[in-house]
Amino acid sequence: MIQIALLGLGVVGRGTFDLLEQNRDLLAKRLGDTIEVKYILDLRDFPDTPFAHKVVHDFEVIRADKEVTLVAEMMGGAHPAYDFTKACLEAGKSVVTSNKEVVATFGEELLEIAAAHNVAYAFEASVGGGIPIVRPLANDFLSNEVTAISGILNGTTNYILTEMEQKDKAYADALAEAQQKGYAEKDPTADVDGIDTCRKICILTGIATGVLPAAAEVKTEGIRAIDLADVALLKKSGRAVKLLGRMQLAGGKPCCIVAPFVCPNASPLAHVDGVFNGISVNGSSLGETMFYGRGAGAEPTASAVCTDIVATLRDGVTSFAPVFKAATADTLTPSGEFACRRYLRSSLSETALADKLGTLETLDGSVGAYLTERRFTEREFDALAPALGLISSLRVL
Amino acid sequence: MIQIALLGLGVVGRGTFDLLEQNRDLLAKRLGDTIEVKYILDLRDFPDTPFAHKVVHDFEVIRADKEVTLVAEMMGGAHPAYDFTKACLEAGKSVVTSNKEVVATFGEELLEIAAAHNVAYAFEASVGGGIPIVRPLANDFLSNEVTAISGILNGTTNYILTEMEQKDKAYADALAEAQQKGYAEKDPTADVDGIDTCRKICILTGIATGVLPAAAEVKTEGIRAIDLADVALLKKSGRAVKLLGRMQLAGGKPCCIVAPFVCPNASPLAHVDGVFNGISVNGSSLGETMFYGRGAGAEPTASAVCTDIVATLRDGVTSFAPVFKAATADTLTPSGEFACRRYLRSSLSETALADKLGTLETLDGSVGAYLTERRFTEREFDALAPALGLISSLRVL
Repeated sequence: MIQIALLGLGVVGRGTFDLLEQNRDLLAKRLGDTIEVKYILDLRDFPDTPFAHKVVHDFEVIRADKEVTLVAEMMGGAHPAYDFTKACLEAGKSVVTSNKEVVATFGEELLEIAAAHNVAYAFEASVGGGIPIVRPLANDFLSNEVTAISGILNGTTNYILTEMEQKDKAYADALAEAQQKGYAEKDPTADVDGIDTCRKICILTGIATGVLPAAAEVKTEGIRAIDLADVALLKKSGRAVKLLGRMQLAGGKPCCIVAPFVCPNASPLAHVDGVFNGISVNGSSLGETMFYGRGAGAEPTASAVCTDIVATLRDGVTSFAPVFKAATADTLTPSGEFACRRYLRSSLSETALADKLGTLETLDGSVGAYLTERRFTEREFDALAPALGLISSLRVL
Repeated sequence: MIQIALLGLGVVGRGTFDLLEQNRDLLAKRLGDTIEVKYILDLRDFPDTPFAHKVVHDFEVIRADKEVTLVAEMMGGAHPAYDFTKACLEAGKSVVTSNKEVVATFGEELLEIAAAHNVAYAFEASVGGGIPIVRPLANDFLSNEVTAISGILNGTTNYILTEMEQKDKAYADALAEAQQKGYAEKDPTADVDGIDTCRKICILTGIATGVLPAAAEVKTEGIRAIDLADVALLKKSGRAVKLLGRMQLAGGKPCCIVAPFVCPNASPLAHVDGVFNGISVNGSSLGETMFYGRGAGAEPTASAVCTDIVATLRDGVTSFAPVFKAATADTLTPSGEFACRRYLRSSLSETALADKLGTLETLDGSVGAYLTERRFTEREFDALAPALGLISSLRVL
């Protein structure tokens, strides 16, 4: 019997506990041993539940118990989750987590501590909910240089954008509905302003390139300013607007951005709708791949946590051992150099615009909406923008 | 320096050799050691190439060389590929392969021999070309029971079907074009009759459930009989016809079939076009996921072979160790029990049809084309079919 502890019994923590119970036999068969939750750390008590006796309020009890060899951290927030994680790793316990904030902020240090103590720090559940993406990116692209990642990484914003596109809802109405259905929080800032997406693209960039950008260094635009008129116009030609976290190599170094992008119909990302996530990964040899599935929710996220638990217990540290180094000016290209085509509506004439932007493609059936043929870096476009008579503009995938 | 041998210098073999050369530094960095191809086994000589001196015609040279610890088999066909694989494993060499015929036919025995000799038998390249699917299915669904797999597993047929749908081409014309472009062989039987897809769904079923069906036991229908009229009719309502290899659990046991299926617009498989592959995997906890990418071609397939090489050399047998047991009547549900909804065109009246099939959905804007609401097993539908006045019929995903 293998003893583990759960830190935090919120939505993901409870889902993980339930999944460990429901799948007890399946997991035992695959692991060759049974998994027993010895402790659950939470501020609350859970009287009248079958697990009331497992609940503890003092982290020290878990840290000091040598029988506990693995801890699943699902508390959310930077502190005390980071501190507890560090203490567990230093005590020789492997840690698996769904906490993207801790991974994105402290990933370098925690992976180093894990390696030094010959234990694992695994975080499949931190990106893409239940979709296997973190482990495949670390283990299954070994013969490829990952040249680009483009991910729909936040189910809340993708739900809102899908509602806008498919039901002609304005942003505020779609957000209100998402809140009503429980897909969006009362304070939706972390989702709609792209903060959640930013942390996730930083983590994926770290795994793929070894360079972990600081979230604060990545230019991040959310979806609040998206005009339904643009969404409707683009839809007519089969294009969809999606909030993407993107990484592309520029000058041989990763360059990241988070923003809404126009996705052409031919891109598989254009067809990722509702609360689903889709992560497109370009490999130098295998070209474009995409990983698709449920990016949030108790059960899919718990599924990822449990997979990390079983893989770590079964295969040890070899099953997942990426190396992050926090980005520096020498290893990361600033977001200002991120280059892409642009969609825009403008009050200027096509001739005047083409003069500044080069050849333009007129959007089917529209007047005054264009796609540039040229790619512009953020820096270039920001410099041109004031003179473009812009009504609106979006980046193009 | 790690010495390896390549068996077969066809398209995939040459692609793998080139990739090992091009990515020498990347692979060395990830592996912590350099990979050296010591031998290339082929019937031909390759004079005036830089690797002419590596070419051997006698397999025994490779088998007997203790310096060679890993062999990549890319010969195709059952024999002598199977015999060479067995001999390598018994000699304590790990084998990685792109050969789906050998894996589908001899997978149980070869995995057992590999385990007995503490070496790996890995076959990421046998399904889905460059898409990471074999390893993720083995390693990243550990906390899920895989309840269903639906895969577009053959790029040739998907190219033909995409041409029929998007360019209103008849099957024969689309096939001729695919042959001209080199996407289809002169004798396209293995592709268009579903044989290739069948081997691949058998392998995926083996990894996901531990039960490896014999390809001959899986009901397999190809795409030759698909009527352009149906494709065009279905397209109007956003549906696409795709050749799928499918596995679903029936009575707790896997049940497989290969056939063209109508895919609704909401399914991500409906948007997998051209030579791309898409593999949808349903997990008991994480719901539907999909893996998408280039399913064929020298470079993507070589990428998968090289990933297997690096993962096997780096992590040893723990990196990939599925267990297959050849299916028996006790472990596999026959294809006749595979259940799905049906699309049909019929000369009977809707009332007469509904009498036999239950509630029908009339396809948007069509006369005489319907979708059943009920799911029918193969057995049930085959019994009903003669009395349905069928002009055509297709299964529905």
